[in-house]
Amino acid sequence: MATPSGSVTSAMGFRAAAGTCGIKASGAPDLALIAAEVPCRFAAVFTTNAVKGAPVLVGQSVEQAGVAQAIVCNSGVANVATGRKGINDAHRMCRTVAKAVGCDPAHVLPASTGVIGHRLPIEKINAGILQLADELDRGPAVDAAVARAILTTDLVSKSAVRRLRIGGRTVNIGAVAKGSGMIAPNMATMLCFITTDAVISRAMLRRSLRQAVNADASFNRITVDSDTSTSDTVAILASGLADHSTLKSGEKDTARFTEALTDLCREMAYQIISDGEGATKVIRVVIEGARSGADAERAARSVADSPLVKTAMHGCDPNWGRLAMAVGKSGAAVEMDRLTIRIGSIMVMKSGRPAKFDQTAASRAIDRREVRLQVNLGLGDGRCEILTCDLSRQYITINADYHT
Amino acid sequence: MATPSGSVTSAMGFRAAAGTCGIKASGAPDLALIAAEVPCRFAAVFTTNAVKGAPVLVGQSVEQAGVAQAIVCNSGVANVATGRKGINDAHRMCRTVAKAVGCDPAHVLPASTGVIGHRLPIEKINAGILQLADELDRGPAVDAAVARAILTTDLVSKSAVRRLRIGGRTVNIGAVAKGSGMIAPNMATMLCFITTDAVISRAMLRRSLRQAVNADASFNRITVDSDTSTSDTVAILASGLADHSTLKSGEKDTARFTEALTDLCREMAYQIISDGEGATKVIRVVIEGARSGADAERAARSVADSPLVKTAMHGCDPNWGRLAMAVGKSGAAVEMDRLTIRIGSIMVMKSGRPAKFDQTAASRAIDRREVRLQVNLGLGDGRCEILTCDLSRQYITINADYHT
Repeated sequence: MATPSGSVTSAMGFRAAAGTCGIKASGAPDLALIAAEVPCRFAAVFTTNAVKGAPVLVGQSVEQAGVAQAIVCNSGVANVATGRKGINDAHRMCRTVAKAVGCDPAHVLPASTGVIGHRLPIEKINAGILQLADELDRGPAVDAAVARAILTTDLVSKSAVRRLRIGGRTVNIGAVAKGSGMIAPNMATMLCFITTDAVISRAMLRRSLRQAVNADASFNRITVDSDTSTSDTVAILASGLADHSTLKSGEKDTARFTEALTDLCREMAYQIISDGEGATKVIRVVIEGARSGADAERAARSVADSPLVKTAMHGCDPNWGRLAMAVGKSGAAVEMDRLTIRIGSIMVMKSGRPAKFDQTAASRAIDRREVRLQVNLGLGDGRCEILTCDLSRQYITINADYHT
Repeated sequence: MATPSGSVTSAMGFRAAAGTCGIKASGAPDLALIAAEVPCRFAAVFTTNAVKGAPVLVGQSVEQAGVAQAIVCNSGVANVATGRKGINDAHRMCRTVAKAVGCDPAHVLPASTGVIGHRLPIEKINAGILQLADELDRGPAVDAAVARAILTTDLVSKSAVRRLRIGGRTVNIGAVAKGSGMIAPNMATMLCFITTDAVISRAMLRRSLRQAVNADASFNRITVDSDTSTSDTVAILASGLADHSTLKSGEKDTARFTEALTDLCREMAYQIISDGEGATKVIRVVIEGARSGADAERAARSVADSPLVKTAMHGCDPNWGRLAMAVGKSGAAVEMDRLTIRIGSIMVMKSGRPAKFDQTAASRAIDRREVRLQVNLGLGDGRCEILTCDLSRQYITINADYHT
């Protein structure tokens, strides 16, 4: 992974601020504000969980309108299962931001992450917003503060940037994210905020974001524990200040922009999986030769979510029987005789039969920061790549010893 | 749970034997033989995993024929992913049994449980079969030996019996099972063998077994870790020696037989979950008020397989947020406002909002050998009950420290 050399204030037109407004008992930073100089083209994708947090419900209408000028995010309390009052709290945050930065309240995306079932301390948050609005700025210090303020159980901050040239202009795409599982312990959120100065239509921005989020090894293809958060949000604001001609569907520059955005999303997804609860390594599950892309995804998810595969990887055991089991139970078309499995570069099963391999070398191939598990179903062209992490005692400790 | 007062040799016409033929390095018992005096009506259900063990493939043809007179089962090696040679090994076991007990080789069900990808030590097994055929007997000592010989990582033996009166005759249904997960560490099997002296048609026996296996909290509604074995088998032999008039579809006695069989399967399923890998408690997930039965099952499986729910239960944390999350991600129709959740008898969420409850009392309701999690979706009459166990550090230890 490249060292990030920028984040959400790298793109032209964006400023941010972050600090502590007193939500977390620990006194850790808990509030962040990102604001644009101009109304931006806006696209976002939200959790598919039927139980959605109040900020997600409010954010969905911002997404429908397609314009945003600010993002406000608190950590510590998720504002989920809080009913009508929770929705009102989210709207109040938006109104406070709108007033403080001078924009339309309908152009503010609210986000919250933390415990479920508690009301937000809305007075503290509003006071915090007013203070942050006075401190809006750009640069590495601000970027780092924002990345820190949105964390819950994460161990490390997550941010990255991509730059490309379009029509002689530099286009920046910067991102910040949090999430230590698809859901963190009794917290509920994977969040990623992206800013860009690209000139792009709303429709094209939506399409690029969807493509980037659904790409192999990107946000929709990572799993820590198969548990889908109630607040997952990936949002992008495009200020248009890079001042090149508008990116349109079918153009080469548009494809390059989508590619850069996808690459950025993949890096953020990788950072999240690396910091998965209890994780000691990243597992890259690659399914090839499936009858269809959907079958490849089924098989990849089944392997990536299998506790027996994840514990074997934790123990550095080249247990290909569990890989065959996980593929077999997935619902994808599988013919035992055609199944070929590799751990790292070592073939452990060929055409449905055990391959002769060096156990110690295979163990060593697993004893790394990243392990590649490659299964070829031998039935077609379907391919899918999903990232997960190993399952350790630490995961149990984090999630069983935590109390609401 | 009632103390078992019988097992596979309780029904008239069945004898058994078990011992050590030298498969396991530990020298523990590893071979069991169950034989009937007469050809029996036979029904069985097998794993839905697309990767199936050789004994399952052979067993499926026995099931199609619908007649069986013996079951032979070894532990230590599962005979999975062994290709054509593995199929031949399973057939050889059947032929040896047929010769030794005097029956048709096509009427022998083979079963194997243990590591994947290794050939059976077939000479040892054949010698063992010949010896066991000489020792066939009935009674508690034999039943206990059979229950022990089929175990792999299980900590306790599993057996039970049900008795009912039909047409003035006593009908016995006895069972033995193994399984410490839907799949045990690099072992692959949940097995249950049932014998009965009921007089019943093949078609009716199949129907009764399917009903019993799919009932709430029975075999198809338990999960230790969401990983489906490559060798799961539940088989029933009916000798017909109870000598009442044949059980037919639509009769009251048939319903009573199916009920007793269901009750027996539930007890065996409960024993398996109680002995789930690393389990310290049984979790009974009850979904009510779903839009359909299928929706209820989706929601119940989602809760029962959620690592975050299972770790919260392990830590005795009344974390209803995770329950709402698991129901919400299940794909079942869910309306937040109608969601009501109880832990034991304590209401923790009502109509989508947190209920006021005593945290300590709720923790105590979880700190038991069995916990009931009840979710009412408030949308219809769909209901489903699934058993699972908690997720502990011990599960990780068993499955990460084990090496193939």
